[in-house]
Amino acid sequence: MQVKDVFVSAPGKAILHGEHAVVHGKVALAVSLNLRTYLWLKGTTTGNVCINLPNIDTFLCWDLSELKPLIPYSCGKREEVKRLDADLVRRLHEFLGVTNGNLDTCNMATIAFLYIYLSVFGSGELPSLTLTVWSELPTGAGLGSSAAYSVCLSAALLCASGTIPAPLKEWDHTARWCQEDLERINSWAFQGEMIIHGNPSGVDNAVGTWGGMLRFLAGKIIPLSRVPLLRILLTNTKVPRSTKVLVARVKDKINKFPSIMNPVLDSVDAISCNCERVLSEMTCEPITGEHYNILEELIDMNQHHLNVMGVGHPSLDTLCRVTLTKGLHSKLTGAGGGGCGITLLRPETDSSVVQTTMQDLKDCGFDCWETSIGTPGVQQHSALSVKEEVLEILNRY
Amino acid sequence: MQVKDVFVSAPGKAILHGEHAVVHGKVALAVSLNLRTYLWLKGTTTGNVCINLPNIDTFLCWDLSELKPLIPYSCGKREEVKRLDADLVRRLHEFLGVTNGNLDTCNMATIAFLYIYLSVFGSGELPSLTLTVWSELPTGAGLGSSAAYSVCLSAALLCASGTIPAPLKEWDHTARWCQEDLERINSWAFQGEMIIHGNPSGVDNAVGTWGGMLRFLAGKIIPLSRVPLLRILLTNTKVPRSTKVLVARVKDKINKFPSIMNPVLDSVDAISCNCERVLSEMTCEPITGEHYNILEELIDMNQHHLNVMGVGHPSLDTLCRVTLTKGLHSKLTGAGGGGCGITLLRPETDSSVVQTTMQDLKDCGFDCWETSIGTPGVQQHSALSVKEEVLEILNRY
Repeated sequence: MQVKDVFVSAPGKAILHGEHAVVHGKVALAVSLNLRTYLWLKGTTTGNVCINLPNIDTFLCWDLSELKPLIPYSCGKREEVKRLDADLVRRLHEFLGVTNGNLDTCNMATIAFLYIYLSVFGSGELPSLTLTVWSELPTGAGLGSSAAYSVCLSAALLCASGTIPAPLKEWDHTARWCQEDLERINSWAFQGEMIIHGNPSGVDNAVGTWGGMLRFLAGKIIPLSRVPLLRILLTNTKVPRSTKVLVARVKDKINKFPSIMNPVLDSVDAISCNCERVLSEMTCEPITGEHYNILEELIDMNQHHLNVMGVGHPSLDTLCRVTLTKGLHSKLTGAGGGGCGITLLRPETDSSVVQTTMQDLKDCGFDCWETSIGTPGVQQHSALSVKEEVLEILNRY
Repeated sequence: MQVKDVFVSAPGKAILHGEHAVVHGKVALAVSLNLRTYLWLKGTTTGNVCINLPNIDTFLCWDLSELKPLIPYSCGKREEVKRLDADLVRRLHEFLGVTNGNLDTCNMATIAFLYIYLSVFGSGELPSLTLTVWSELPTGAGLGSSAAYSVCLSAALLCASGTIPAPLKEWDHTARWCQEDLERINSWAFQGEMIIHGNPSGVDNAVGTWGGMLRFLAGKIIPLSRVPLLRILLTNTKVPRSTKVLVARVKDKINKFPSIMNPVLDSVDAISCNCERVLSEMTCEPITGEHYNILEELIDMNQHHLNVMGVGHPSLDTLCRVTLTKGLHSKLTGAGGGGCGITLLRPETDSSVVQTTMQDLKDCGFDCWETSIGTPGVQQHSALSVKEEVLEILNRY
């Protein structure tokens, strides 16, 4: 059996407002980030299954005969389940010679692929194929790179197996799946995330699947119907941090100063709600400068609150200061303590201002991308619709 | 009649926590600042009344015969009144040829002096005297320089007139008045403040009179019995700002984002209360590093809140950043938008660290003083007890 080629992409994720507060029962707004992960699945007749992940220098091939013994017994009966097949995961660890201490990015990505591949195709004949993934997202920066990868895997493999249809018509450049198919993609992507993260919130894969903006409150994820596309700069300070340590730091501070910190969490909650309201207004009335003024004020206020919580960092102060000299407003996104920040660009922000700002940030030692948030979720592409540099990379393998 | 010489001083004021929030019904903590105003009143037999205010280049003399017609009719009956004698103020404006548009610092300081002088001595014979004032405080920087001046005027003139006793014994270097006399000094100082400021809160003259720390809430001023003396750096960014504009900016922001801003005011209130508690603990239990850690955390959190309120300024960010590189924590004090900031020094902070920090701040174009807060209020001095450089300046006139 030779499967058809599938070309898909999924966006990264940024937290617009509510990081950390969400841990304490407040609203967070997660948005899709138009730094995308691209996956090209090519059906082959080589009798091999090959995976090329050039971002993490991972290039692996197996003979189909090696993989067949791994097919899960329960396969076919558990398409929509939310729990991992622990037996399959254990056998994949054994197959790859992975001990608990050796779960690096390469192994996790490989296990996630094999898990979904074997589960999706296991009820029939395993097809030979070559799968190449290239991502514009930095890994381990809290931008949902693993979720974008899992969403791409899930969409491409479900599509190649015929579990969901390929939405792309001949004349389309890109196409999206219907709601029911997106649910299915998200469900398998969540399993990939469980393999990679252990105990994911499900926000990242939901953003990768649906795109746009999601409201996240007390474990419930609600995709918001319409949000405007916003131009941003995404900056990676490259200062390493531990999300776990930062979350613990905020918790300690709340315990130490409850009367000071609880109002701060309430204020962050109100910032998220105000932001949601303004973004929703922007989709149903003419967008004005005042909408952007408010978005900027909310960004500034939240950044100060995150500093109160103790998750700021001198590198993030530098980001805010450098961008403010150009009249641009920034905040950290995600865990803080370094990591990434977003800078809102206004529709009228001149590209020369963007270029000099990016150069100034790069001069600080940061990585910086001009991109957008609120972009569509997972989509199928015709090869024509993909940027040449991405195509060129994917074509190498 | 020749009056006895009196030498007094009064401290400036800084807001430790709660600036702006106090306008919206929250607690503020005002502390005395050991940058003092010194006043030397010398009894003379020249038949002249002379006032020398070298800080503001004001040197004036009047013949007693010029001043006698100005003596208020109600004089002697109104020692403790809280309302200004508007008729006397009007006649002093006329006497100095001051029109409404010409109320500069020099005129206001002169009117405040003549007002208290005439009111205090008007029921008897006007004495000839020379009064020289020198202040370590920058004027117009929100550090209570006018109140320190009014408190000194009030204490010296009440003392010279015999309305209150001189507390200094022969063997003393400095001495303070009893509670009742302090009330009297404060009451006349408040009248001076009314002349200079129009509608003062009364906090500045209370700090100048009682020193230490005051709790200010909904117009009520409560001196706190015991507070530790804290070493600080006081920095004047010299960025000019209008308190009125900044207060209006905060009010606008509260009206625009009530659900975001009201919790911030609550949090500032809790910061003030936490600070008061810690300072009180420091006077009744051994002072530990943890006390200072908390004071530093409270300073940082409040500074971020003041940024949320929109009263920060790049110069204040610079102050915070420069001092943090030395492990020291700073916040704006007073109106913000530039103006002054305070930096807490720990008992163990080495003088070399203090010196290099001060140099770094001066290199930013700021003025910077090493001083302390929580220092005593108005006091009488023997000339011996006053720093030589101050004595040298006062002796010139």
